[in-house]
Amino acid sequence: MADKALVVLSGGQDSTTCLYWALARFGGGSVEAVTFDYGQRHRVELQCAAHVAGQAGVPQTVLPIDTFGALGGNALTDRDIAVPGFDANEGGLPSTFVPGRNLVFLTFAAALAWQKGIAHLVTGVAQTDYSGYPDCRRETMDALQRTLCLGMEASFVIHTPLMQLTKQQTVELARDLGAIPAMALTHTCYKGVRPPCGECAACVLRAKGFDAAGIPDPLLCA
Amino acid sequence: MADKALVVLSGGQDSTTCLYWALARFGGGSVEAVTFDYGQRHRVELQCAAHVAGQAGVPQTVLPIDTFGALGGNALTDRDIAVPGFDANEGGLPSTFVPGRNLVFLTFAAALAWQKGIAHLVTGVAQTDYSGYPDCRRETMDALQRTLCLGMEASFVIHTPLMQLTKQQTVELARDLGAIPAMALTHTCYKGVRPPCGECAACVLRAKGFDAAGIPDPLLCA
Repeated sequence: MADKALVVLSGGQDSTTCLYWALARFGGGSVEAVTFDYGQRHRVELQCAAHVAGQAGVPQTVLPIDTFGALGGNALTDRDIAVPGFDANEGGLPSTFVPGRNLVFLTFAAALAWQKGIAHLVTGVAQTDYSGYPDCRRETMDALQRTLCLGMEASFVIHTPLMQLTKQQTVELARDLGAIPAMALTHTCYKGVRPPCGECAACVLRAKGFDAAGIPDPLLCA
Repeated sequence: MADKALVVLSGGQDSTTCLYWALARFGGGSVEAVTFDYGQRHRVELQCAAHVAGQAGVPQTVLPIDTFGALGGNALTDRDIAVPGFDANEGGLPSTFVPGRNLVFLTFAAALAWQKGIAHLVTGVAQTDYSGYPDCRRETMDALQRTLCLGMEASFVIHTPLMQLTKQQTVELARDLGAIPAMALTHTCYKGVRPPCGECAACVLRAKGFDAAGIPDPLLCA
């Protein structure tokens, strides 16, 4: 497998930063993106992901996953469940937790990478500032990397460039990678509205990061 | 999580044996089944799985997965790719290999189990007589179990009662569990035809197992 990378691109701030990280690390002709259409409530992300990939000149594959919707029971795919505010995740997992979501995303990404002869998988999960999602931790990613390598007889490496970064540091990384303009194309709000609701956990975290870095969010300046 | 079990039930011989193994191990009211509709060419399996679960009195959940069909490139979901004969898998993975299939099945099974408060997952994968699938090995299952536990903050146990059994021993286990009559409801043929083609790798393995155990296959006696 050559030194090519497949980035899990949701169309959000973090995965967009990862796309530019991969372009800097692996080079322009060696990066592809995969986006999952899993019935997410914030479906505007799908358009954002296509715009981000297009502007970066990166081939993008969109894969459907209808299983999470059939499983139900979470606020990201089930419209009957309210999206919690920022403080709602005290004590237990938040209602936006889709069990196994990142595990499934990376397993399907690995399946696509296997077909394409790509060894490097890149994901924007972070355990700093994370919203209580156990599938965002490096320990989980290490176990998953081993599982994918064994299960597909391959030498996958899961890169998590944002894992130890605060939201401020992620914004600063995006600045260093020249990715701030692309942030105007991204979407973060859990409620899927534009302009962003400004109240959900994702919006609050994003605003804090840009504020702390002292960089205006181009999404809000648009 | 109580001592309840969720069996990945494909409608085939092995998963049906696992269902009866789980019933013997965990008791009648503590077993459920999950079946995946992933666009398999042998779709008759879905009916078989429903019949097997119904006869065993086990609640069954059917979950769709449209992603493998979108990925394409394998003989189990892609009708443009021929199903190989028994000797076709010499040197390299066979064309029936769906990268990550069992990893995805068990991850979604774990997500469903997480919702239902079920800790025990049961799958019929076997590394003896297996068709060259690296996601059927116990080492892979161990890594996956760790991944699922970390990723969902749960205490899952993946049971693989057939892992070390030959096909003969699997038939003998089914006999000991009283599961032979249920085999008349199962489906094995990769080509999805009834009566079974008798030529594909799955048919040949099944016939060898029943022959070696000296037990008539009720599917062929029907």
